Amino acid sequence: MIVVKVGGSEGIDIDAVCQDIADLHKAGQPIILVHGGSHETNVIAEKLGRPPVFVTSVSGYVSRYTDRETLTIFEMVYCGKVNKAIVERLQQLGVNAVGLSGLDGRLLEGTRKSSIKIIENGKRRILHDDYTGKVERANVGLLTLLIENGYLPVVTPPAISYDGEAINVDGDRAAAVIAAAVQAEQLIILSNVPGLLRDFPDESSLIPVIEKERVEEFMDFAEGRMKKKVMGAAEAIAEGVGRVVFADARIQQPVRNAMQGRGTVIQ
Amino acid sequence: MIVVKVGGSEGIDIDAVCQDIADLHKAGQPIILVHGGSHETNVIAEKLGRPPVFVTSVSGYVSRYTDRETLTIFEMVYCGKVNKAIVERLQQLGVNAVGLSGLDGRLLEGTRKSSIKIIENGKRRILHDDYTGKVERANVGLLTLLIENGYLPVVTPPAISYDGEAINVDGDRAAAVIAAAVQAEQLIILSNVPGLLRDFPDESSLIPVIEKERVEEFMDFAEGRMKKKVMGAAEAIAEGVGRVVFADARIQQPVRNAMQGRGTVIQ
Repeated sequence: MIVVKVGGSEGIDIDAVCQDIADLHKAGQPIILVHGGSHETNVIAEKLGRPPVFVTSVSGYVSRYTDRETLTIFEMVYCGKVNKAIVERLQQLGVNAVGLSGLDGRLLEGTRKSSIKIIENGKRRILHDDYTGKVERANVGLLTLLIENGYLPVVTPPAISYDGEAINVDGDRAAAVIAAAVQAEQLIILSNVPGLLRDFPDESSLIPVIEKERVEEFMDFAEGRMKKKVMGAAEAIAEGVGRVVFADARIQQPVRNAMQGRGTVIQ
Repeated sequence: MIVVKVGGSEGIDIDAVCQDIADLHKAGQPIILVHGGSHETNVIAEKLGRPPVFVTSVSGYVSRYTDRETLTIFEMVYCGKVNKAIVERLQQLGVNAVGLSGLDGRLLEGTRKSSIKIIENGKRRILHDDYTGKVERANVGLLTLLIENGYLPVVTPPAISYDGEAINVDGDRAAAVIAAAVQAEQLIILSNVPGLLRDFPDESSLIPVIEKERVEEFMDFAEGRMKKKVMGAAEAIAEGVGRVVFADARIQQPVRNAMQGRGTVIQ
């Protein structure tokens, strides 16, 4: 089993990702696809007169401030626009795809952080009414059932809290938790950069391999959202995923490219 | 098995529908829920600067003119906003709901009418670039798989064309095709009126029972969207559904109310 995560950033060639996944699926490779939709959410939120607000937690992580109205926009874009566009594309390529959010079958469960401590203009502040959380569990029974019956699951945030509320969660972490739960051979995280860069954004500074024992040292090179990616990779490997590859989704055959080790391999 | 269709019109108490379905599900009643989202789609389309355009076909049916951009808005609202809100609500009520569009697992297949003949200001005109179609087949293998494993499917348009394109289809007809495919004992169609009215919109003129042999005579009373409902009911019964009930979704226990025959029963 491989778990492929494809981000929602600009520049990503989603058609190439779908084509590659279709080819692999037809060759008998079991795959779970997880996707994001952050960039599109910003675009639609702007159009709806609710421009995105990003906050930085006291521990340095950037996340989308997600009140209930923003959560609805998030669901419209992730579960409606992006998920259904990918499912439609895969179906056109002959893959019997099924789109699922973390709410469906309680696929992705986690804790809602009903209040988060943020840093704003150098000062600490507590945000309430935020529907953000952290994926802690993947109930993969539904995924296994679908895969065993020939379907290809296409999974997207939000997740569901233990109280049954939809929560905005990080897609990379969601993919890592799923990869660990199904004990995937590989977790492939595709974005609009060729992998982890020693000197961001200089793409010639790509780090080709990180031994899992040395992940912590490399956290220094991780900028912004990449921090979450590296953290998720370390967690996934600790929980039994064979290896994690960060690779480029702006090229043809991006999945096979990553499977061949082109990108940053954490093993 | 019962198939419940709940519309997307104003006045519908979706919480009451979910509560009733949760109670029935816990009592062991297998249920498939199908929903619409027409009203919400109008609201969001307006907000996004793409106000809805409705067209009347030469045979007198009103449908949403659905170019590719409108289709995306349609998917955002039906598959994102409405579907996930219902799944979340059912999960809160302890029901392991799974949301699916007609694209997922090719659940709802049909023909895209790539050109439709409409009447505009009394003149005939042909519309191209329209992603509207008619559901002809429900591939219920996925529904059966989910139900047998304890999940409750929550199904929404769009459907998928035989060429793999997403198509805007009528939700009532989708529910009727599903009900026929699973040979449902009852198809319950809930909306913001108490049933089929002899003198629309006078609710005291409710027609309590229509014998299936006499459906054609009652088409005269059917106004606007209700025509599609009656046509779908006649088709569903012809294909083996036990009975169809049109009933009120503005009240408590709307599903059990309909199961007890309150509304318009076609049998």
